[in-house]
Amino acid sequence: MAQKPSIPKGTRDFSPSEVAKRNYIIQTIRDQFQKFGFQPIETPSFENSETLMGKYGEEGDRLIFKILNSGDFLKKADKEAYEAKDSLKITSSISEKALRYDLTVPFARYVVQHRNEIEFPFKRYQIQPVWRADRPQKGRFREFFQCDADVVGSTSLWQEVEFVQLYDAVFSALDLKGVTIKINNRKVLSGFAEVIGESDKLIDFTVALDKLDKIGEEGVKKEMQEKGISAEAIQKIQRVFDLKGDFAEKIKVLKTILSTSEVGKKGIEELEFINMSIEALGLETATLDLDVTLARGLNYYTGAIYEVSAPKEVKMGSIGGGGRYDDLTGIFGLKDVSGVGISFGLDRIYLVLEELGLFPETVSKDIEALFINFGESESLYCFQAIKALRKAGVAAELYPDEAKMKKQMTHANRRDIPYVVLAGKEEMEQQKFTLKNMRSGEQFTVSQQELVEKLK
Amino acid sequence: MAQKPSIPKGTRDFSPSEVAKRNYIIQTIRDQFQKFGFQPIETPSFENSETLMGKYGEEGDRLIFKILNSGDFLKKADKEAYEAKDSLKITSSISEKALRYDLTVPFARYVVQHRNEIEFPFKRYQIQPVWRADRPQKGRFREFFQCDADVVGSTSLWQEVEFVQLYDAVFSALDLKGVTIKINNRKVLSGFAEVIGESDKLIDFTVALDKLDKIGEEGVKKEMQEKGISAEAIQKIQRVFDLKGDFAEKIKVLKTILSTSEVGKKGIEELEFINMSIEALGLETATLDLDVTLARGLNYYTGAIYEVSAPKEVKMGSIGGGGRYDDLTGIFGLKDVSGVGISFGLDRIYLVLEELGLFPETVSKDIEALFINFGESESLYCFQAIKALRKAGVAAELYPDEAKMKKQMTHANRRDIPYVVLAGKEEMEQQKFTLKNMRSGEQFTVSQQELVEKLK
Repeated sequence: MAQKPSIPKGTRDFSPSEVAKRNYIIQTIRDQFQKFGFQPIETPSFENSETLMGKYGEEGDRLIFKILNSGDFLKKADKEAYEAKDSLKITSSISEKALRYDLTVPFARYVVQHRNEIEFPFKRYQIQPVWRADRPQKGRFREFFQCDADVVGSTSLWQEVEFVQLYDAVFSALDLKGVTIKINNRKVLSGFAEVIGESDKLIDFTVALDKLDKIGEEGVKKEMQEKGISAEAIQKIQRVFDLKGDFAEKIKVLKTILSTSEVGKKGIEELEFINMSIEALGLETATLDLDVTLARGLNYYTGAIYEVSAPKEVKMGSIGGGGRYDDLTGIFGLKDVSGVGISFGLDRIYLVLEELGLFPETVSKDIEALFINFGESESLYCFQAIKALRKAGVAAELYPDEAKMKKQMTHANRRDIPYVVLAGKEEMEQQKFTLKNMRSGEQFTVSQQELVEKLK
Repeated sequence: MAQKPSIPKGTRDFSPSEVAKRNYIIQTIRDQFQKFGFQPIETPSFENSETLMGKYGEEGDRLIFKILNSGDFLKKADKEAYEAKDSLKITSSISEKALRYDLTVPFARYVVQHRNEIEFPFKRYQIQPVWRADRPQKGRFREFFQCDADVVGSTSLWQEVEFVQLYDAVFSALDLKGVTIKINNRKVLSGFAEVIGESDKLIDFTVALDKLDKIGEEGVKKEMQEKGISAEAIQKIQRVFDLKGDFAEKIKVLKTILSTSEVGKKGIEELEFINMSIEALGLETATLDLDVTLARGLNYYTGAIYEVSAPKEVKMGSIGGGGRYDDLTGIFGLKDVSGVGISFGLDRIYLVLEELGLFPETVSKDIEALFINFGESESLYCFQAIKALRKAGVAAELYPDEAKMKKQMTHANRRDIPYVVLAGKEEMEQQKFTLKNMRSGEQFTVSQQELVEKLK
């Protein structure tokens, strides 16, 4: 019985033109990664469950795809959990492997496992799919690619400067002008919490502050109060809500707000170093901006925090993000390895380039020329030319069947192939080919050599 | 508590140089696929279980990795199977998705699902990982890449000719000379079974014959007899075991062996067409050979069968294979779609190129130049040059920390970076850089522009 074919929700088939466009973005990112000295690694699609579980919080654990053990897996199922029909508890006894949830934890695992082969500081990039059992919705998928670049083993702030330049280089290479690279520093956030005397509520505080552009000043203040931060405390950082002007101007105000916080001042110093370096070096098409509300999974980052937003004319969330995390590999037993890294949001970048019409026309490339099939001996004659074309780097093929002329021409049109080549008895006798430009309709009689020259 | 990190058995981490070498092979294959008119598609890593189950036989079903349903999966578990603790029977009620086992079934699913968007004949290629819960052993992995090219919607034998040329083009582009493209035809095998009067034992017959180079003539005959094929019957095709000479000579003998079999004669005719076309067109570095013992999953193929073996000096199984299958999409309800395709064995090709030293030296490319870090202002000065280099396509970076000179030079050596650039106070004053060739030890004083020219 025939099945009606479908794919799991949240997953996608990619057509030839979609693959070509995705590869164009990936290749552009990869080129810049390489120019900046990052080297590629790849890790397995599934890891041992204990490598992943407990690294992303309770919600993350739930969203990790687990792989069922092979064979008679129930034999080793946890007896108690089996009797209690406890799905959560039984999982680890019937599933030992799980699909990668992000590229950061596998990278940390890689660094620790291969630490004796790695020359530090180690700059790696990784472009691979990850899987999350999230509820699928517009723009959110259960399988999607992450494109990450990280450095481990150096605390130098030049890395932070490099990542700003890297973002600028990639988006400039994609001809996506006008992106904003927003930067913040966890130490500044800690400073805020300190000066209002609410250091123990740092996370509640920053989670609320992070929502400023979504729920507005009043909304943020309301949420802070709900979390037990007093109106008086909030009043102390009113100037944070009023921050305006360019990077340097904001820094000036921050210096007065955080004048009593050592950690806060350290954060400002780092931000200033990055900004001054970037001012000296210049950016091609992006703008660097200071956004003190930026938090992005604060528990994780310990220094710089990045987020990139698309040009203002496009409605789209962030198209990239990252930051510094001081203890990347501690979970796997290697202490004091600082890391800093950024990520590119492939799917969203794709949508932005599509909306702005920024994919080069040549990206979705089919063949250059289709040879019309007039029969066996004509086809063999054509294949000589096809072989020469391919050797010269030109994609070409013969229509495989001796179908009606009209059918073959329609096929060329539907595939939007720019040239058709015809060679019947007459052309063969003269050792020629008729080359037809499908756009202009022009026709030329050419030798094999001229054909190659023309299409190369 | 720190975990000792490891990866699941049968999976692999790929280091930067391994990724670079794999990408070199993949890119070479992809380039040729495109020149021959194949277009890329990608399908999800996991499919609905019913798409995959039952397509690869009982053994295949067992080797498919199943993904556990999310949430309280035991709630929907099959009650009977649960009570009986029947792992096999319970699976479909607690797992709805499974990891792709090959690229052919997902491709068939894709063709049927998207048949209204596809322009036929459709030539697609697909290079993605697949997963099999096989017992891992040397050269056999649980996660590995397949590189497939297939045409659907044309029965033309020119496709078979094209695939021989494609194999030749790829292995020539990889500079792997001396591969043998072995070809056979299912109809010839059917002819053999027919002329010995054992058509109902076709599969047993060909499975045994396929082992000729492993167990020898006597071994094959013994196995055939064990399967109930009489010594008399076997005697009738003694000349199959004695086949010698080039393609044309073998064809001549086959014509007499199969003179009474219509299907056998059709098979010979197809093989002859392919051989004569290839003789007329020529191959660059490969040899086409007829191997009538070749079967490769006979149940599947209906016409041509291909297998590629590495040059004789390398001990290695097949590095590619494929064939024609007349009913690719029938399982998904689309009848009469003929397909023909080939596959490249990435892992084995990698091993062969490694063994023969055929990876170009430039494949594992790290940066071209490391700039030595002498402090903040020197670093900023260096970054101006680094930016110019990258703009000109040269990969370069600054050593991130102001470490001792020796440490920085050692880092450059360990990474085998060809050039080191030094710029201290003196160079800065003169607007120069000292460029040191790490291989020859030579040093030059150059301007930024000269530096870019020199390294470009």
